[in-house]
Amino acid sequence: MRASVLLEAGSVVMRDLDRPVPDRDQVIVQVAAVGVCGSDVHYFHEGRIGDFVVDEPLILGHEAAGIIVDVGEDVPSSRIGERVSIEPQRACRVCSQCKHGRYNLCVNMEFYATPPIDGAFAEFVAIQSDFAFRIPDSMSLEAAALCEPLSVGIWSNQKAGVGPGSRVLIAGAGPIGIVVAQVAAAFGATEIIVSDVVAERREQAERFGATRTIDPRAEDIATLELDVDAFIDASGAAPAVRAGIMAVAPAGRVVLVGMGADEVALPVSRIQGRELVVTGVFRYANTWPLAIKLASTGRVDLDSLVTGRFGLADVEAALDAATAPETLKAIVDPRA
Amino acid sequence: MRASVLLEAGSVVMRDLDRPVPDRDQVIVQVAAVGVCGSDVHYFHEGRIGDFVVDEPLILGHEAAGIIVDVGEDVPSSRIGERVSIEPQRACRVCSQCKHGRYNLCVNMEFYATPPIDGAFAEFVAIQSDFAFRIPDSMSLEAAALCEPLSVGIWSNQKAGVGPGSRVLIAGAGPIGIVVAQVAAAFGATEIIVSDVVAERREQAERFGATRTIDPRAEDIATLELDVDAFIDASGAAPAVRAGIMAVAPAGRVVLVGMGADEVALPVSRIQGRELVVTGVFRYANTWPLAIKLASTGRVDLDSLVTGRFGLADVEAALDAATAPETLKAIVDPRA
Amino acid sequence: MRASVLLEAGSVVMRDLDRPVPDRDQVIVQVAAVGVCGSDVHYFHEGRIGDFVVDEPLILGHEAAGIIVDVGEDVPSSRIGERVSIEPQRACRVCSQCKHGRYNLCVNMEFYATPPIDGAFAEFVAIQSDFAFRIPDSMSLEAAALCEPLSVGIWSNQKAGVGPGSRVLIAGAGPIGIVVAQVAAAFGATEIIVSDVVAERREQAERFGATRTIDPRAEDIATLELDVDAFIDASGAAPAVRAGIMAVAPAGRVVLVGMGADEVALPVSRIQGRELVVTGVFRYANTWPLAIKLASTGRVDLDSLVTGRFGLADVEAALDAATAPETLKAIVDPRA
Amino acid sequence: MRASVLLEAGSVVMRDLDRPVPDRDQVIVQVAAVGVCGSDVHYFHEGRIGDFVVDEPLILGHEAAGIIVDVGEDVPSSRIGERVSIEPQRACRVCSQCKHGRYNLCVNMEFYATPPIDGAFAEFVAIQSDFAFRIPDSMSLEAAALCEPLSVGIWSNQKAGVGPGSRVLIAGAGPIGIVVAQVAAAFGATEIIVSDVVAERREQAERFGATRTIDPRAEDIATLELDVDAFIDASGAAPAVRAGIMAVAPAGRVVLVGMGADEVALPVSRIQGRELVVTGVFRYANTWPLAIKLASTGRVDLDSLVTGRFGLADVEAALDAATAPETLKAIVDPRA
Repeated sequence: MRASVLLEAGSVVMRDLDRPVPDRDQVIVQVAAVGVCGSDVHYFHEGRIGDFVVDEPLILGHEAAGIIVDVGEDVPSSRIGERVSIEPQRACRVCSQCKHGRYNLCVNMEFYATPPIDGAFAEFVAIQSDFAFRIPDSMSLEAAALCEPLSVGIWSNQKAGVGPGSRVLIAGAGPIGIVVAQVAAAFGATEIIVSDVVAERREQAERFGATRTIDPRAEDIATLELDVDAFIDASGAAPAVRAGIMAVAPAGRVVLVGMGADEVALPVSRIQGRELVVTGVFRYANTWPLAIKLASTGRVDLDSLVTGRFGLADVEAALDAATAPETLKAIVDPRA
Repeated sequence: MRASVLLEAGSVVMRDLDRPVPDRDQVIVQVAAVGVCGSDVHYFHEGRIGDFVVDEPLILGHEAAGIIVDVGEDVPSSRIGERVSIEPQRACRVCSQCKHGRYNLCVNMEFYATPPIDGAFAEFVAIQSDFAFRIPDSMSLEAAALCEPLSVGIWSNQKAGVGPGSRVLIAGAGPIGIVVAQVAAAFGATEIIVSDVVAERREQAERFGATRTIDPRAEDIATLELDVDAFIDASGAAPAVRAGIMAVAPAGRVVLVGMGADEVALPVSRIQGRELVVTGVFRYANTWPLAIKLASTGRVDLDSLVTGRFGLADVEAALDAATAPETLKAIVDPRA
Repeated sequence: MRASVLLEAGSVVMRDLDRPVPDRDQVIVQVAAVGVCGSDVHYFHEGRIGDFVVDEPLILGHEAAGIIVDVGEDVPSSRIGERVSIEPQRACRVCSQCKHGRYNLCVNMEFYATPPIDGAFAEFVAIQSDFAFRIPDSMSLEAAALCEPLSVGIWSNQKAGVGPGSRVLIAGAGPIGIVVAQVAAAFGATEIIVSDVVAERREQAERFGATRTIDPRAEDIATLELDVDAFIDASGAAPAVRAGIMAVAPAGRVVLVGMGADEVALPVSRIQGRELVVTGVFRYANTWPLAIKLASTGRVDLDSLVTGRFGLADVEAALDAATAPETLKAIVDPRA
Repeated sequence: MRASVLLEAGSVVMRDLDRPVPDRDQVIVQVAAVGVCGSDVHYFHEGRIGDFVVDEPLILGHEAAGIIVDVGEDVPSSRIGERVSIEPQRACRVCSQCKHGRYNLCVNMEFYATPPIDGAFAEFVAIQSDFAFRIPDSMSLEAAALCEPLSVGIWSNQKAGVGPGSRVLIAGAGPIGIVVAQVAAAFGATEIIVSDVVAERREQAERFGATRTIDPRAEDIATLELDVDAFIDASGAAPAVRAGIMAVAPAGRVVLVGMGADEVALPVSRIQGRELVVTGVFRYANTWPLAIKLASTGRVDLDSLVTGRFGLADVEAALDAATAPETLKAIVDPRA
């Protein structure tokens, strides 16, 4: 099969590889749509993310959907032909984290497009059968691929305790910030305040559910006394994180989604004095069924996030496109 | 009545003041024991804690117990004569935080010994009737006074999710760290690791429940792979906070009790990658009934914390004593 | 002032009474709309509900809204003129339940229209200032009155854990069942199955958010393998409760809202085998802010529930109307 | 290997069977101790429990411990020789319940000694490697076997929210009630009230941690106003369940452990009026690590529960012994 392979930082090439053979509990999916994520771009440019280093050829791409074309021996062959959204993680199912239902924190996790595990910029991928979720006919394969970032939005909002009537501040109106805002609205939040330094992105946020946008260069969020119930950072920018924490009401929650520096100076005395709860997200667990419901019932609009489409030979162009401020989601279709 | 009054940083004097008159829902307590807290020492030396500034004479002391000698019109006079432990906060009971049961976060809180509210280094104090808790005959008035720091320990352990079989790391073996360790043991923690740079304090920790002590100058806690379920910081020291966070297992909790700098650089990527939950404590709510149970049944030993006793005229000496490393608790008895 | 007074079962008369004088923390509300509740009807017909017996004249009515016309000494006079929705409970704020935020379980609760506390079928009522919630101009006073049953719906759904993507079964499509269904939809439930033996009520349920209705006389809910996440009983009918419990998926929740017999035979082996969580609601706590948000933003439609309007002299007619199957809410306007 | 096989109700015989061969993720354990459970007795006498019918020969026994003698290909051979406690369930790990950490509710569960899955009254058994828990040298194999009923006690207390200072009522002082009481004590409960109609059992309860015992024939628990935080039923007797529910404070919890009639009349109006939370337990999940900690540190005493020891040829005698009121635990040692 054909695959787009990252050889080292800055170098992506097409390769002919063996098509994966399913383990007994796996399905083989013919990939039809793969969203480009910031982490793909980061691996492409830097060749690493933190401790994960690309020291062998790696297939990127982990926001994927397609059609089941083969199954392992323990999987009913009736699944062949199903249109599925892929949850791109392979947990061990036996460690304590897995057995407590927190399989995203599995100590033996194999995750698509994270060295040394290959991702989905390829014609075919293998995934455990129960991590390939059937989608309704009404749902596009592109939307199915974007159930991955949607899951980040779901998980973030769940950890932030967002619900009916919540007041939420979101920093960053890139693709993740936009999805977080959409999910907040779907979860019943009545005030969704999105901050971003880029005017174009603030406008996008308003199209996707923000009830108010703020340019943090024009207004000091830390002093606005927003007193939100939850702050979700999708920027990874230290000043945004600090200002956002200052905007949270007593007993409120802070969820750090955006990746930035390893260490960030945080207003600890405020966290203490208001008993704020600060946490982060690491991928997600058990979000796919809800993601498919939200997307297929129109509560969240994934199709409109697609701002560019590329073939497998154009992965580098897709990676470049993903960094433009007007891009929400570049999609790679390996069939093209 | 006689009271010890802080006039300004460094200046404590005896004064004759009017004895408090009870509001209809209050009781008047003849104070019999007041523990000296680090915050008292801080006000004495600095004249302020954060935004709270001593710009008028202030009575310090908020760890208090005594005997009810008078009651307001709504309080049954049968309470006169009761030996009570005082929860030194007066919440408004009508704000949203109060009505949700988080009265420690009350936006209108009046707290003993926090400007401009007077504390308990005095012969008599007033407190709302339901914040004066009857103690059993078997319990000393000194132990009753120390239900206040015990409550900090309870609240911290509750927020840290400590329970049977928990593995807990505690930074700082001062009075609060010692109480936190004792409560962790009472809550069923099976590993209680306490770090402190002072050997004497580590020894005290071992006497009060630590199963292991660490000198952070000799061992790098961040690299020991302790993988504890919870880390409670009772040091307020930035390096201890950072190292402690690195020692927490995935999905574990971090509770910041010690006061230090307003901003502290925290290992955010670790908080994210392990989905740690970081929070702080601001006083406590609804802890007194449990504090009295723990202390009166011997699950926690408060009496042994008392390392010095002083009269009202010797408050300055008590404040000085409280800073010595061998002191756990200096007690002021205004009757002496 | 004029008031409609229940003398004993079956006997409601108009009386001239003294207008209430506010306690220092109270406001006086000129009542503009009062919804008729099943409990009002029950008191009218039976003269009692359980242990609560009408042995002195009692003013019924507890779903109330109006305009503040007077305030107690601790309440700013600027509140006069406010249009408010009344949360009709007076909790003691000092018992353990209150201090834990569960003031609906206050052991000293005084609740409107529950002997011996008068309700709102009167020109004026007194209520604690923080239990009179300002409503937006866009919201009708009738909708404001119906924030009370809406709060029952909110509390029920919160206890049932209903959220985005939930599958919910609701037994009973009377006024409470309809409100429960509306709240379930507002909370993001994607399947809302409502059962009722009356065809007319099933049709109403469909108008107000049910995605499916069932006639329990035609289909045996216990055997449909609905496997819902939550079952909320708003019928009080033992067979409906039993069948509903059989329809809940493992680890699902059951919330009993409808009042019926004191004892009901429940399928305990199913509760055990699936580890279902069964609970009930007793009024509500801290629901008004959300109720006003849901109603004023159109997420829940309260105005359309009003199917009849009556003056104070016609309370008996209103009570009669409330029992008709086509009635959702009869409203009494004491100003008429 | 030799095994004790239940052919049909009342008929247990010795048989020579093939020794189990490990699946790739399994270990083979030479069984050294098996506790006799009430469910074993029930199968022996009735040939069924609810829908589970013994229609083929079945090996009983699910409270088991022993020594690993063989491993599957994915298990390190270094495990051979380990002394282990067996968690006797085989969950599918892929259903939604498993992936949420509630594997005890797995829809595909295979559980020891539950038709058609064989149990541990045999020389050897197979179990998934991660369900065979290494025990410390200091812990007896009998105690290791009794980690199974201990897990029931842990799970029950966890669901009942028992913690430091809790007041708990336990109905039934049989083996499970005794373990529930021990765990309540280990969890920090300060009042542990145990009811049983048999004086001998009440005495045993007092030896194992009860702070008070009640003979329900002498005192009406429903009217004692115990106002406990939690009620755990280990009797399965309907009157005990009803009385216990009446003894719970507002917002308290009820956990039904004992198996009795499929349907039981419960005081629903009390559940509603006090917003009690009623649930049941179905086995346990993730309890073994804590069970081993509690038992090996002496917080719970399992060895003293053993009141009789039997060889594999004497399983029928062991089953008979288990019904005597003075028996807490009969142990079968298949090596004898």
